[in-house]
Amino acid sequence: MFATALALTLLMPMPRVATPGDGKLAINEDFTVAATGVSDGRMDRAIDRLVARISRQTGIWIVAPKAGGASRATLRIECSAAGPAYPTLGEDEAYTLDVTAQNATIKAATIDGAMRGMATFVQLIAEGPGGFSAAAIHVEDRPRFAWRGLMLDVARHWMPLEVVERNLDAMAAVKLNVFHWHLSDDQGFRVESKLYPKLQQMGSDGNYYTQDQVRHVIEYARDRGIRVVPEFDIPGHTTAWLVGYPEIGAAPGPYELGRHFGVFDPVMDPSKEGVYSFLEGFLGEMTKLFPDAYFHIGGDEVNGKDWTRSAAVQAFEKEHNLADNEAFHAYFNQRVLKIVQANGKTMIGWDEILHPDLPKASVIQSWRGQKGLAEAVGKGYQGILSWGYYLDHLSTAAYHYGIDPLGGNLPADQASRVLGGEACMWSEYVSAETVDSRIWPRLAAIAERFWSPAELKDVDSMYQRMAAVSLQLEWTGVRHRANYAPMLERLAAGQPAGPVKVLADASEALGLGPRARAQRYTTLIPLNRLVDAARPESESIRALEQAAGRRNAEDVSALRRQFTEWAANDALFQPMAGQDGFLVELKPLSKDLSALGAMGLKALDYLGGGQQAPAAWLSTQTAEIARIQKPNAEVTLAANRPVKILLDALAKK
Amino acid sequence: MFATALALTLLMPMPRVATPGDGKLAINEDFTVAATGVSDGRMDRAIDRLVARISRQTGIWIVAPKAGGASRATLRIECSAAGPAYPTLGEDEAYTLDVTAQNATIKAATIDGAMRGMATFVQLIAEGPGGFSAAAIHVEDRPRFAWRGLMLDVARHWMPLEVVERNLDAMAAVKLNVFHWHLSDDQGFRVESKLYPKLQQMGSDGNYYTQDQVRHVIEYARDRGIRVVPEFDIPGHTTAWLVGYPEIGAAPGPYELGRHFGVFDPVMDPSKEGVYSFLEGFLGEMTKLFPDAYFHIGGDEVNGKDWTRSAAVQAFEKEHNLADNEAFHAYFNQRVLKIVQANGKTMIGWDEILHPDLPKASVIQSWRGQKGLAEAVGKGYQGILSWGYYLDHLSTAAYHYGIDPLGGNLPADQASRVLGGEACMWSEYVSAETVDSRIWPRLAAIAERFWSPAELKDVDSMYQRMAAVSLQLEWTGVRHRANYAPMLERLAAGQPAGPVKVLADASEALGLGPRARAQRYTTLIPLNRLVDAARPESESIRALEQAAGRRNAEDVSALRRQFTEWAANDALFQPMAGQDGFLVELKPLSKDLSALGAMGLKALDYLGGGQQAPAAWLSTQTAEIARIQKPNAEVTLAANRPVKILLDALAKK
Repeated sequence: MFATALALTLLMPMPRVATPGDGKLAINEDFTVAATGVSDGRMDRAIDRLVARISRQTGIWIVAPKAGGASRATLRIECSAAGPAYPTLGEDEAYTLDVTAQNATIKAATIDGAMRGMATFVQLIAEGPGGFSAAAIHVEDRPRFAWRGLMLDVARHWMPLEVVERNLDAMAAVKLNVFHWHLSDDQGFRVESKLYPKLQQMGSDGNYYTQDQVRHVIEYARDRGIRVVPEFDIPGHTTAWLVGYPEIGAAPGPYELGRHFGVFDPVMDPSKEGVYSFLEGFLGEMTKLFPDAYFHIGGDEVNGKDWTRSAAVQAFEKEHNLADNEAFHAYFNQRVLKIVQANGKTMIGWDEILHPDLPKASVIQSWRGQKGLAEAVGKGYQGILSWGYYLDHLSTAAYHYGIDPLGGNLPADQASRVLGGEACMWSEYVSAETVDSRIWPRLAAIAERFWSPAELKDVDSMYQRMAAVSLQLEWTGVRHRANYAPMLERLAAGQPAGPVKVLADASEALGLGPRARAQRYTTLIPLNRLVDAARPESESIRALEQAAGRRNAEDVSALRRQFTEWAANDALFQPMAGQDGFLVELKPLSKDLSALGAMGLKALDYLGGGQQAPAAWLSTQTAEIARIQKPNAEVTLAANRPVKILLDALAKK
Repeated sequence: MFATALALTLLMPMPRVATPGDGKLAINEDFTVAATGVSDGRMDRAIDRLVARISRQTGIWIVAPKAGGASRATLRIECSAAGPAYPTLGEDEAYTLDVTAQNATIKAATIDGAMRGMATFVQLIAEGPGGFSAAAIHVEDRPRFAWRGLMLDVARHWMPLEVVERNLDAMAAVKLNVFHWHLSDDQGFRVESKLYPKLQQMGSDGNYYTQDQVRHVIEYARDRGIRVVPEFDIPGHTTAWLVGYPEIGAAPGPYELGRHFGVFDPVMDPSKEGVYSFLEGFLGEMTKLFPDAYFHIGGDEVNGKDWTRSAAVQAFEKEHNLADNEAFHAYFNQRVLKIVQANGKTMIGWDEILHPDLPKASVIQSWRGQKGLAEAVGKGYQGILSWGYYLDHLSTAAYHYGIDPLGGNLPADQASRVLGGEACMWSEYVSAETVDSRIWPRLAAIAERFWSPAELKDVDSMYQRMAAVSLQLEWTGVRHRANYAPMLERLAAGQPAGPVKVLADASEALGLGPRARAQRYTTLIPLNRLVDAARPESESIRALEQAAGRRNAEDVSALRRQFTEWAANDALFQPMAGQDGFLVELKPLSKDLSALGAMGLKALDYLGGGQQAPAAWLSTQTAEIARIQKPNAEVTLAANRPVKILLDALAKK
């Protein structure tokens, strides 16, 4: 029973049906896999990856994983057909998985379905008495939504190929199936164009993907059952294009690559026919490079200032009876839609492309709210929800988990037009070094929202399973945990990093909103401070909060241990901070953490002693907590929360 | 002065001349590099790597590193000639480096020399008031030995391509210039042969490098100024060859791939002419694949049993007046030497090839002692020392550092025949996951022994600089530190790994000798226990030993803090250990660590109180220490050492 109950604490996304069985399947060096039904390179490579993943996780060298026939294999994969050669929206991703003490069997109608089953199987593997094993279980599973994506912005901060690769591996581990690649923005144009080479030559600081690399990523994603949907954001967010091709802009230019963040004035000039011939060439080239049926043209955040300033644009609007810049934008979208359609693609754009003249064949990606999505599907468009899934806000996993793509209480016919959701990783405040820790593990919880039944809402269960999956994801190669220690060691500048780690563990990083308000950031400001190392959600504080709520003997001693460490930490931190750039800004934070430690110890004394806490002490501490919970150096002390729980308990006493 | 003194604590290998200057050179997003004198792809790529390395280390995005002319560059590299296109023994690796507050200049006569200067420059970069900078300095530098190598055994445990790549990067960072690739042994044949494909097909479990991958590694190493010397160990250590080609063996066969470790009976049969035609084909193929002028034929550990058992061999020895198997082996070596020479290569082998009939054109790699090396160079051979540099013994860095390739007090003419040294990473007890932590950081100290003046012997300085370089190496991509936490988390099996880390930090892993004596190992036994995660030398204990020796107020409080953590750790460890496989064997060790913590606290009390420790207590504790310092679960508790220092101080009181 231990093993079986364990299984259900390891799975994310939780399958539709997961019934624990008896016993467990040993995973050792004799592990073998046999696939029947299809013969396909994708299946072979999926098996190779599965075995490599198990080897990394367990430290066991699996000697001959493909040796022996299907009858003797540890894991049998019965896949009745290959399914589409390139992953396709709405394809059959269902599978069943049966694990017994003797062997495991995955059944699926497509290779992509089989791979979803393999992702579940590998999550079951855990260490216990007798070594590694997968708990016996019966699983029947299929996704709730067909479109389950991650959008990655590689424009604001450049994301080298290996960042994309390792995140595709992690996406596959939680059954996501759309990689939305935000490839251009004011700060960078990131793909090689052979027709318009000045795009990457003048718009990327040399940081772009060659077409060969793009093809490699598409193949890499295809192998994992993930579609690649490219986005070239037009007509706004195009400063990087206009550096090399000012003639397609609405202002005379010259243009300079964006270094700041926000909504900028530079925009294409839809009144010029040359813009459409440019786009015919460019989109013709890119729609051939990317095989997916969908093509994203952005369309968000056009402030229209350069249009208003342009006499030519104003004359054009008048001449074509375009009431305003919004109508002018819609005119542009219709022209672009024709080009996209002529190239055989379905067009997607952000909310803003929604306009009475927009043909119904378009897809709306809603970032401004569930209302926007409801409006789009109400009007007959298909839609994708991204509002509520903005990873760069550094909200809690519980927040994202609580948002449903169908949250708007839609009628069935409208609900059926919601294709799914996409988490968005905008990169103003993340770099290749920090991006993984901003995506993971929270994206696993969002992936569950997209895959699993809507009824699954238990936040405690979600956090428990997300913590397990966070550790598992480490073995896929994603660096959300691995990059933590080196970043803290950088801050410590050669000194032992222990006290910095105590502080970072107790802190949570602020997201886009407050950092944008600081107004100090450009693409050139390094993201190498504590705020960049600290996690969006502290790993350890949640357990302390639960302990503070329960307060059994074990809890109290765990709390006491942690509070003691915090209380002692400032005396270690202050001397190492010196006058040094990185640590100086953290001195007040460190002092506050030690104060919280002392406060927590005192609160435990009062709670344990049966003695009433003096009212004056309580009110002073409560005021102190209120002060401390304000952000400092762009982080908040999550350490506040368990202490606050103790104070509240004292107040009620 | 802070900055300048700091510089000398960061460099390893220490340059021949390093004179601190005034001020420091800021390293920020405007950092640029310009090379003059040569135009060569290797230089361009070296600059790209340097900039990427600085970016990783600092977290700073360097916008346009190659922009601007030489007069304005932050770092100017004046390289008067490209030097040999493939790195060559004895080539000019000298450089000078001048860093001022305004800029830095490297001057060298070859690209390889310039790269050595770049490796020094990047070691100077540190964080301090005002951000990152390189301290002003004047450096004049050249290597003491021309052959400075690492041998990596990829046969006993397979080492995938990325292991080789990342270790080549780290080697370049400490100015090593020979990668000796031990490509075949009883347990595996690791290179694709197109002439004899059964070598890899039947001798590798599918784990081998294709010829394209070999060419890639050679190119990768060449780019870093590192030669690649292949070793195919013959006629012994050849079980993996004989699985596919039993006809070249001395016994009738069939042969099975080696799974155990040691010296085995299977051996080629030098009495068969077919063996030489096989080797003519094979060595012809491999000498073309590997461009280096040297070719290693192994030649070690032939036990001769299969020769003695073979009537044909015995008849052959008699017929050719070969007194014994040793003479027979020498006969074989002469035949092999002719093939190697016919292919334009100089032959290297281990000690055992030394024989009166061996031509002087051969090179002896001495693994059995400095005496063996002295004998070889005394007889006119060139030699390389590897004895004393066996990383798999997990000796201390101080031990390796204390051994000099010229330690045998050789006359000058003989000393001149000592080409240098090579550290050896045999892989019986390391895997792709653990190998980095067995190589690094100790290899940095050995690299200093090979590069820097012999007079440099201060062990404290070595440890201080090795610790700094260990952190820096993290940014080259080598995983000696990165793999530690995931391995401990694996041991913790989903529970918080803190108590396991406390234990691991205080432990040191045993090396080849004791592990081999355990007789339990084969290539199939996973290397995933605490002994595999624990370091050869604890990172933190050395500081505690120094503190225990000094015992100022700060030391005492640091000791007290650590002892308190140890004392409390067992109570946390025991419940999480449960009946579980990984942790159960560590229960006695954990108990001992807590006992040491308590003992240390008590000792501090006695030392601080001015009161004599009772003789009975002291003798009990001393006996306890003696018991505890015996290995357990294949690790030793390094935590013993600081406590022992305190007890010794009490005994003297």
